[in-house]
Amino acid sequence: MPRINFHQQLAALKDKLLAMAALSQQALELSVEAYVTRDVALASHVLEIEKAINAAETTVDEMAYELLAKEQPMAVDLRFILSVIKINGDLERIGDQATGIARRAINLDVKPRIHLPIDIKDMGEKVGVMIRRAVQALLEADAKLGESVLAMDDEIDRMNRAVQTELIDVMQQTPSCSEQALSAIIISRNLERAADHATNIAEDVIFWVRGSDVRHKLSLVEAD
Amino acid sequence: MPRINFHQQLAALKDKLLAMAALSQQALELSVEAYVTRDVALASHVLEIEKAINAAETTVDEMAYELLAKEQPMAVDLRFILSVIKINGDLERIGDQATGIARRAINLDVKPRIHLPIDIKDMGEKVGVMIRRAVQALLEADAKLGESVLAMDDEIDRMNRAVQTELIDVMQQTPSCSEQALSAIIISRNLERAADHATNIAEDVIFWVRGSDVRHKLSLVEAD
Repeated sequence: MPRINFHQQLAALKDKLLAMAALSQQALELSVEAYVTRDVALASHVLEIEKAINAAETTVDEMAYELLAKEQPMAVDLRFILSVIKINGDLERIGDQATGIARRAINLDVKPRIHLPIDIKDMGEKVGVMIRRAVQALLEADAKLGESVLAMDDEIDRMNRAVQTELIDVMQQTPSCSEQALSAIIISRNLERAADHATNIAEDVIFWVRGSDVRHKLSLVEAD
Repeated sequence: MPRINFHQQLAALKDKLLAMAALSQQALELSVEAYVTRDVALASHVLEIEKAINAAETTVDEMAYELLAKEQPMAVDLRFILSVIKINGDLERIGDQATGIARRAINLDVKPRIHLPIDIKDMGEKVGVMIRRAVQALLEADAKLGESVLAMDDEIDRMNRAVQTELIDVMQQTPSCSEQALSAIIISRNLERAADHATNIAEDVIFWVRGSDVRHKLSLVEAD
């Protein structure tokens, strides 16, 4: 019953990837909370989660490699496994962005807190939703849900540009706040990048769901 | 003679990846030149190169997929193909960083030029060397050369941190220069990120060259 075993392994791969997605999403959300509330202990916890994410990335890659090496996956499964490898990389990079935010929260601990005319918390929540939706789209093979992630990315890009415009103004008006303003700009860019990775994941899901169909139809035509 | 055909396809995949690497490296080097010399036409050219990089990424992915779908690559070839998929993603992201730098060069065109106490040109050249070495390591399956890329990454990280410290100082002393200083900080981060991708490539090469050996030995032991 090698095929049954194969499908069990495929299910295990999906489970592992979903567990990793949960870690990445959690890391990102906690890093924003740590920055907003200046919670150094929480920021340090994010750095711990990142280690778990890196370990999970290696495991997912190895599982995908084993599946490719020992089985001869059919077109749709092959495309799924290749999507998993790419999504795995994007999730790890979301973890990197969370780490960047957490490190900045730790470094800012010694600086006076100032009010900045931006809403990082809101931006972080939106990016969290994007990651959750992208993963749900994968789980349910839902290309339409994937598309909703792409639409949200435009909004995050706009927010990121607005943050930059606002904070250059702050830097010029209140130079003593430059360092805090710069940190906020960079955290905004970290979030924008995490949103890009969520977008990549959604695109991979759409490609997997729709592309595999297209490919399957093509191979029927091409077969000779 | 399907195996001969397979090795021809593998060689074609490698060639295509190397062509893509040349584009990414060129985009990065030209983007830095465009920023340093404020050459808007050159910056626009980088945006054109990025389109070619994106097209090449899709082609490489499809070639890799075809190889996996139609052949049953042996362990060492399988690992090479999976490395190509990952390296492909890193090269595309180097193109993204180059685009970020080029866009900033275009936007800065209307701002007065000021002297900043940093050397983006030098940093850009070092990152160019890293990309070139990482690709050469792939071409020659040279893990040792790959390791030299990892060592250079530490230097780029140091340079990036120094740029930030210097330019926060500029922002506080000369608020009217905040926007130009911020651009330089972000370009420095773009370069640091491109260096990270070169490092990822080098790590993939090392993993491919050494990991495949380890794996091969393991599979001899594990076989039952």
